[in-house]
Amino acid sequence: MTQKKYVKLFKEGSAAMKDLLGGKGANLAEMTKIGLPVPPGFTVTTEACNTYFERGRVLWDDLKNEIIENLKHIEDQTNKKFGDRKNPLLVSVRSGAVVSMPGMMDTILNLGLNDNTVQGMIEATNNERFAWDCYRRFIQMFGNVVMGIEHFKFEMILDNLKQKNGVEYDTQLSSENLKKVVDDYKKLFAREIGSEFPQDPLEQLFLAVKAVFDSWNNKRAQVYRRLNNIPDHLGTAVNVQTMVFGNMGEDSGTGVAFTRNPSTGENTLYGEFLVNAQGEDVVAGIRTPLPIKQLETIMPDVFNQFKSVCELLEKHYRDMQDIEFTIERGKLYLLQTRTGKRTAAAAVKIAVDMVESGLITKQEAIMRVIPEQIEQLLHRRIDPEAQIDVIAKGLPASPGAACGKVVFDADEAEKLGKNGEKVILVRTETTPDDIHGIVPAQGILTSRGGMTSHAAVVARGMGKPCVCGCEALKIDISNEEFYVDGRTFRKGDIISIDGSTGNVISGEVPMIDPEMSNEFKKLLEIADEVSSLTVRANADTPEDAAKAREFGAKGIGLCRTEHMFMAQERLPIVQEMILAQTEEERKRALDKLLPFQQQDFEGILKAMEGYPVTIRLLDPPLHEFLPNIEELVVEITKLKIKGGDTDKLKEKEEMLRKVRGLTEFNPMLGHRGCRLGIVYPEIYEMQARAIFQAVVRLIKEGCNVLPEVMIPLVGHKEELRKMRELVVKVADQVMKETGIEFDYKVGTMIEIPRACVTADEIAEYADFFSFGTNDLTQTTFGFSRDDAEGKFLQYYISHKILPDNPFAVLDRKGVGFLIKTAVELGRGQKPKLKVGICGEHGGEPSSIEFCHQAGLDYVSCSPFRLPVARLSAAQSAVKE
Amino acid sequence: MTQKKYVKLFKEGSAAMKDLLGGKGANLAEMTKIGLPVPPGFTVTTEACNTYFERGRVLWDDLKNEIIENLKHIEDQTNKKFGDRKNPLLVSVRSGAVVSMPGMMDTILNLGLNDNTVQGMIEATNNERFAWDCYRRFIQMFGNVVMGIEHFKFEMILDNLKQKNGVEYDTQLSSENLKKVVDDYKKLFAREIGSEFPQDPLEQLFLAVKAVFDSWNNKRAQVYRRLNNIPDHLGTAVNVQTMVFGNMGEDSGTGVAFTRNPSTGENTLYGEFLVNAQGEDVVAGIRTPLPIKQLETIMPDVFNQFKSVCELLEKHYRDMQDIEFTIERGKLYLLQTRTGKRTAAAAVKIAVDMVESGLITKQEAIMRVIPEQIEQLLHRRIDPEAQIDVIAKGLPASPGAACGKVVFDADEAEKLGKNGEKVILVRTETTPDDIHGIVPAQGILTSRGGMTSHAAVVARGMGKPCVCGCEALKIDISNEEFYVDGRTFRKGDIISIDGSTGNVISGEVPMIDPEMSNEFKKLLEIADEVSSLTVRANADTPEDAAKAREFGAKGIGLCRTEHMFMAQERLPIVQEMILAQTEEERKRALDKLLPFQQQDFEGILKAMEGYPVTIRLLDPPLHEFLPNIEELVVEITKLKIKGGDTDKLKEKEEMLRKVRGLTEFNPMLGHRGCRLGIVYPEIYEMQARAIFQAVVRLIKEGCNVLPEVMIPLVGHKEELRKMRELVVKVADQVMKETGIEFDYKVGTMIEIPRACVTADEIAEYADFFSFGTNDLTQTTFGFSRDDAEGKFLQYYISHKILPDNPFAVLDRKGVGFLIKTAVELGRGQKPKLKVGICGEHGGEPSSIEFCHQAGLDYVSCSPFRLPVARLSAAQSAVKE
Repeated sequence: MTQKKYVKLFKEGSAAMKDLLGGKGANLAEMTKIGLPVPPGFTVTTEACNTYFERGRVLWDDLKNEIIENLKHIEDQTNKKFGDRKNPLLVSVRSGAVVSMPGMMDTILNLGLNDNTVQGMIEATNNERFAWDCYRRFIQMFGNVVMGIEHFKFEMILDNLKQKNGVEYDTQLSSENLKKVVDDYKKLFAREIGSEFPQDPLEQLFLAVKAVFDSWNNKRAQVYRRLNNIPDHLGTAVNVQTMVFGNMGEDSGTGVAFTRNPSTGENTLYGEFLVNAQGEDVVAGIRTPLPIKQLETIMPDVFNQFKSVCELLEKHYRDMQDIEFTIERGKLYLLQTRTGKRTAAAAVKIAVDMVESGLITKQEAIMRVIPEQIEQLLHRRIDPEAQIDVIAKGLPASPGAACGKVVFDADEAEKLGKNGEKVILVRTETTPDDIHGIVPAQGILTSRGGMTSHAAVVARGMGKPCVCGCEALKIDISNEEFYVDGRTFRKGDIISIDGSTGNVISGEVPMIDPEMSNEFKKLLEIADEVSSLTVRANADTPEDAAKAREFGAKGIGLCRTEHMFMAQERLPIVQEMILAQTEEERKRALDKLLPFQQQDFEGILKAMEGYPVTIRLLDPPLHEFLPNIEELVVEITKLKIKGGDTDKLKEKEEMLRKVRGLTEFNPMLGHRGCRLGIVYPEIYEMQARAIFQAVVRLIKEGCNVLPEVMIPLVGHKEELRKMRELVVKVADQVMKETGIEFDYKVGTMIEIPRACVTADEIAEYADFFSFGTNDLTQTTFGFSRDDAEGKFLQYYISHKILPDNPFAVLDRKGVGFLIKTAVELGRGQKPKLKVGICGEHGGEPSSIEFCHQAGLDYVSCSPFRLPVARLSAAQSAVKE
Repeated sequence: MTQKKYVKLFKEGSAAMKDLLGGKGANLAEMTKIGLPVPPGFTVTTEACNTYFERGRVLWDDLKNEIIENLKHIEDQTNKKFGDRKNPLLVSVRSGAVVSMPGMMDTILNLGLNDNTVQGMIEATNNERFAWDCYRRFIQMFGNVVMGIEHFKFEMILDNLKQKNGVEYDTQLSSENLKKVVDDYKKLFAREIGSEFPQDPLEQLFLAVKAVFDSWNNKRAQVYRRLNNIPDHLGTAVNVQTMVFGNMGEDSGTGVAFTRNPSTGENTLYGEFLVNAQGEDVVAGIRTPLPIKQLETIMPDVFNQFKSVCELLEKHYRDMQDIEFTIERGKLYLLQTRTGKRTAAAAVKIAVDMVESGLITKQEAIMRVIPEQIEQLLHRRIDPEAQIDVIAKGLPASPGAACGKVVFDADEAEKLGKNGEKVILVRTETTPDDIHGIVPAQGILTSRGGMTSHAAVVARGMGKPCVCGCEALKIDISNEEFYVDGRTFRKGDIISIDGSTGNVISGEVPMIDPEMSNEFKKLLEIADEVSSLTVRANADTPEDAAKAREFGAKGIGLCRTEHMFMAQERLPIVQEMILAQTEEERKRALDKLLPFQQQDFEGILKAMEGYPVTIRLLDPPLHEFLPNIEELVVEITKLKIKGGDTDKLKEKEEMLRKVRGLTEFNPMLGHRGCRLGIVYPEIYEMQARAIFQAVVRLIKEGCNVLPEVMIPLVGHKEELRKMRELVVKVADQVMKETGIEFDYKVGTMIEIPRACVTADEIAEYADFFSFGTNDLTQTTFGFSRDDAEGKFLQYYISHKILPDNPFAVLDRKGVGFLIKTAVELGRGQKPKLKVGICGEHGGEPSSIEFCHQAGLDYVSCSPFRLPVARLSAAQSAVKE
């Protein structure tokens, strides 16, 4: 015996020894341990693999001896003998890494076959043709996989023989034919390798083990490991297992089954089997397998045994299992069990059912569902089986799939929409003037603008599919056509868009509707119980707020007031306000806006009664509300050349002057956020008044409202001090005017690096912080999202300069550092400071996990992301 | 005697007791202590002032008794008696805070005068008219300053009397007239105050002391203290001093003198005096004072005594002094000494002279000159005495003053320049096309663009005065006029601009030429000895580099390669490169640029031989090199309306398409810096090759060159890793091709918050860090400089939301935090990492101090800021 044990019998191992035995080996050991009928075998450990590489890729004697010893154990158990002519022990050899990995060596079946033992196999199976075919396949598999002889060389021999015999399929070859193939294969082998095909089963075995080890370091496996961050030192195990045969007659068979329905999650056996067949026959597809249920009729005892095995395995592993089995002469053997893959819907149902039956805890149930996966339960999506004709790819700006006629004009979209027609609105970019066309459209497609463009923001708010910044599209508005990649699409042509992938597709495609089951709701309730993070929604209208509540939001984390400014009937008043020459004129315009804003706030606060509502005061630069400068220049040039209408020219020139005065080189870093509130305090005053008047009115109705006023883009404590003073002043005025007292909070967005690193000073004037991680990511990286996403960012991600799009997945090392710094400094100054996040990251699982770790109180995301966020929040708590 | 001593005789104090005695009192005590002839007196301490306010603004008995006791000491010393008719003691009462402060009570002279003692004064001065005038003035001063009677009421009495007597000036009034004035004043006093003018000198004294105390808390003083961060609790002292009289005959006099020339720094007495006069006579300006030198002829003994006193005081205080003196009957009295104010030139010369004479240390000399002040020695400036007609104010974009004819066109500027005419180029903004007009212009004036606009950067590079973003100017290019504030200026009109203040001035104004003395050079040499920071220059051309070396640069910290791209003959090649459809086309264009770049680098490296030269690879977004989008739109619209030239239209439309494709919403955060190098590696490859080929060529010439290649805008370690690889690859190629080995460094700008907080990772691939604080300030604050400076930033500064312009003075709390974090993380990874700064802050004193404290190795600034930077670096070291 050697000192170190590099080989373990299945019965010596367990599931806990996955690192040593690999995933497959550990499961085989575990099943053996709990008394299930597993064909005997052993595992050469991952440590052996590592030692093999340390020793310069040579199998050392001690290891060989260990393998031989363990083989003897198996011979004793099975009463068969390796290489014996009468009763040969045949084995399968399979790789088994800790993490399943493409590029590793495949299974080798029937190892131990040679010119002698093939005879024993003929006797055992009573099928000469099958035995020769097995031998033929074994040489081919061994020659190719273990010895590296190219596959086509074996195929050529087979093809020649088929031609010679005038047959088309392998199955038409006779036993004699196959004997000839074996002969020719052996000759090929000798020619290619320079030595005869090894007749010694032990030599076969050692060569196979060596080949499995070597496959751990082949190029494909190396690349896969690097891409998936799998450490090189893990190594692979090798599983050597007694062959059993499902093709030994009508009392034999083979099959695959799931312990529950992997598509729906229903708690019934699901799978199929074939009588008198081996696994390969199922794959070959010549015979049609039977549903597993029918096994009950054909072999009732075996079925009942299998059923209890399934129950046992599910209980044992506490999860739905995917099981391979073989029946050899009425005896059931299990060849593999593993956690079964499942659809999102099944994952949800299984998790909830298992909690309810007491099999798993709530925490475990939460971990059983992948947050990204449940997205598909929330949106209409393109049938993944469908053949689709993708004509271009844009940014996935608002998830879900839509299909309809191409229209280029909002009025047209509205008209067709009224007639019940489905349309996709296609625009270079959208503006507030297009809203009436966006509402009736099935989806929006633009050729310019990023994830925060008007189209994207509006579509997400409406839960409408949208693909943005699809630059490959050349839109010719005047001819009502677009060109892409040499093809032309005209008004009325049918296209589909997938807002989850950014795909633009020609024609109509089959869709799958969202499924929001009771189990799904139940799972989310469990999630809320488990979470320590609260989940709020970003919502700008009473409708959004109601939807958010329905999806389980516990408040509003971000209510953007600028979208209220964009509404069609209000925009002229907003423009009047902006173009005002004096403070008085501006105040007059603001007075007209006040009732609109108040009405919005009443609706939103009422819809969220009992929960906090964070309202952000005006944020975007004012020129966003004014006409486009290029269009003005064109109009003016035209008017000048044509002459005549000097009044109009003057007016346009005056507008151009104003727009130009407000136009900025870098609007993202310009005169916006609280910088507006500071220079034009009357705007924030109006907004604060609208909020507080709405509060008073609702209190009079008996509503319980919790308003939180949020000052955007603060970078210096003085900004917040001033704006807080202003809000408090207005609140005091409204209380005095109405005689009604109310509670409210004043806080700030933290979205500028300077705010993060001076959060101690800022916290002095803040009741809460809300991280605006969209802008914080822009400023921390120095990336303009609108520019980066359509341009170099894709390049960065595809060339692995960045691991992810930092606007989708929060960058923990950079942005995360600043967030943690801010939380630490802020809570250092004010220990009870409430801290949340309202950037889009608030709905992304990895980012939510970070928020949990950073000790945030809540995350806020768009209503349709709420289920994902609630589940992710719970998972973060469980992981901790 | 009271327990606590609230009053100190001059002879009991010293200069060290400034907190207790105030500045004036401490200096009087010090002079007394070292035996100089100071008229006896005492100081009521600042503690007395504080106690006075604690006690509710009442003079308490113990304090009064202390004052009386100390007065007795003075009576004994002077042999005079307070209130005595024969030999009255008269005193002056002056406030004396620790920090000299406007708003505090002025001097009261001749306190102790009353109806009785005025007779004694007549006898003492032998001048009845003067005595009555003194009494009249005393009542007026006392009534106004101490009792608060409005000044004009006294003036009315005086005016009435003058009218009645038909005279014009006070001096024409007779002694009788003045007696009458005294009478009327006393009546006014009684009417206003409700009691008689106090005849008791002690009462006068107590009221005066109280008034001085009260003045500490008057509104003006309070505001001044708040604005200058002077604590309220300091309090003011009160100095009571025996009056001496310089008007007691031809052996008396009074004067003021500096121990050295405050204008030039020359080491000779400088000042003036009047024989038989009091200080007031000098102020009144009726008699012309004589230069101090003449005192030597008139009173040789007194002069010699004064001269030794001056020498003594200078040695004692170790600085140039500003001294007030009076001669009473041949006896010299010193009334005040203080550190003398001086011009920048004088400050420099005095500091250097004093080091050379061994009076002060090098460290002290360094602290004697204010860095901001020496700027005026480096640029032509407007005579501060001149009357100027400021018509508008823009941004002070490049310091210095210039005067010339207004021209609106670069060609015109060139033409006139060739004829030797002085012109100011006035443009909305400048572009690379204007360079040939900028070179011959005296100065540049633009109505748009900020401190980093083309005009500003180019002008600073050339050391040419520039005022930018002067939005009040409405320029009408077509009529060659500009309008401002209702006035019109036409082509050819003369204007002046002041690039240090941003002033635009009508007409020609007197200028002062820069003075770069030997002492100045000497001082900067001393500074370099004292500094631990090295000072480098930002220079983009061989000419700049030579200039920088002349100004003492120890290397180049930032050589921007994009300005080389902007040069007139290269721009078309650059555009060809940008518009290239294929990599091959792009490479062809780059091959044409290579020799230009190599030539530039050769020149720069050679000019800086022996010192490191940091060359930044291309940084700005590519669209900066293409035509303006608005102009293209106008051209296209015109071409469309007019019809005809379809080829040109197509070409323009193609250009527009390309420009639009490259145009960014926020270019500051767009596709620039290393993001260009990553997506178009061939650009950086060309630049690296140009650098290394230049290096090899210079090595062959025997030159010692130290190139440092700097990668801009790195935010993620992968960016630097890739770009470093590329540079190293090119260096290896060039070494292989030429067979010549050379040293070089590869490092990065740190100008993005993410780079700061991940500096540990980035340092792995960096030989040096250079903080680009312009961009770092933009991203940390979320301020676009181009937008902020013309818009809300001015509002922020004037409304005290920000203490300073963060683009001028480094924001220590925010940007500074990030810098410190980066230095710590970077040096943690690589202890010997070289760290510097190359933003504009590198030339600003407070920012340089921060850099010193943060442990940076060097600062780099524009050549003309070098003297300021060298001095500031030294001061930072001394302060530490």
